[in-house]
Amino acid sequence: MASYDKHPGKLFIISGPSGAGKGTICKRLIEDSDAGKIELSISMTTREKRVGEVDGKSYYFVSKESFIEKISEGGFLEHAEVYGNYYGTPKEKVLAKLSEGIDVVLEIDIQGALKVKEVYPNGIFIFILPPSMSILRKRLTGRGTDSMETIDMRLAQTLDELSYIEEYDYVVVNGELEEAVNRVKAVVTAEHSRVTKNIKKLLMDKYKEEA
Amino acid sequence: MASYDKHPGKLFIISGPSGAGKGTICKRLIEDSDAGKIELSISMTTREKRVGEVDGKSYYFVSKESFIEKISEGGFLEHAEVYGNYYGTPKEKVLAKLSEGIDVVLEIDIQGALKVKEVYPNGIFIFILPPSMSILRKRLTGRGTDSMETIDMRLAQTLDELSYIEEYDYVVVNGELEEAVNRVKAVVTAEHSRVTKNIKKLLMDKYKEEA
Repeated sequence: MASYDKHPGKLFIISGPSGAGKGTICKRLIEDSDAGKIELSISMTTREKRVGEVDGKSYYFVSKESFIEKISEGGFLEHAEVYGNYYGTPKEKVLAKLSEGIDVVLEIDIQGALKVKEVYPNGIFIFILPPSMSILRKRLTGRGTDSMETIDMRLAQTLDELSYIEEYDYVVVNGELEEAVNRVKAVVTAEHSRVTKNIKKLLMDKYKEEA
Repeated sequence: MASYDKHPGKLFIISGPSGAGKGTICKRLIEDSDAGKIELSISMTTREKRVGEVDGKSYYFVSKESFIEKISEGGFLEHAEVYGNYYGTPKEKVLAKLSEGIDVVLEIDIQGALKVKEVYPNGIFIFILPPSMSILRKRLTGRGTDSMETIDMRLAQTLDELSYIEEYDYVVVNGELEEAVNRVKAVVTAEHSRVTKNIKKLLMDKYKEEA
């Protein structure tokens, strides 16, 4: 590829309501791409490592003390506390990948995405939507993990979260999975063809030298 | 498709230096797409119809008088005079397609694209680039239609035209045709997933009604 195509990697934030299918889409995005081109962001957490989990693959497992220190240093793109455990996206890990020219995919809920946007507005924010509220209800019920109350709460939350859609760059409806995956892939490809601020200089230098 | 996907068609301006291959890319874009989804813009001209050309397909053939009247009415997205003949992109024909939800592809040189941008800044402007000046020279020479002087002039012009690249949204290097066509197709798909100004209201209405 020509040198002006070698701008560093891009951060794609795949976000959306619970049950929209963002996890499946992210998994496919990574699986279908050439090795070393795009990678999932790995979260840091203070929760106990479970059987089968690998440090640095499933999560970065750290103590509460080091997590809190990292917060105070501004070391996270976002972080949250859930049931007494901390979870966060370590900034320097993501930035290191990006500067190597590797795209990073961050799967995250809407609150988290909005926090990331404050710290890294150059990210590309993709909102994954269920095709309808009734299908979302069906999906959440089908999981069999949540009570009816929890599901009702999540549906109400989804309506709430829709109001943040204008903070995003793209919206992809996940009705048919293949279609949704292809749309997200198209966004990744297209974003790498975007005219960037430094492209004019890069091109002029390259073409003039040659002419 | 859901109703919030039914925003009207989009105008894609495929532009770039002579010899970059914009014509071939446009042709493939239309050929590979489902009928009625995306169409080439048809120019209006005052030049004589040639054998085999069909009015309303190759061009809209009109008299000089009606062309000039149309100019005075602001009826063109852009127009130019070449060797005493007029050529232009009729605004109402393009807008009619867009409002029917059909994408329109406009293949045009850089001067024309810049004029279109003044009238229709919502267009999506794609700059097609040859991979290098030496390959561009080879392509222009290979055509066998231009003198060395003309080719030298075109190469100098290309360098000049590169300075307008920041007016564009995307840049696609046409080294390998399939790769370039796929990139332009990805841009078309991605642009249809863009969060638009009215999407929030459309979505809220749809999802609330259903909830």
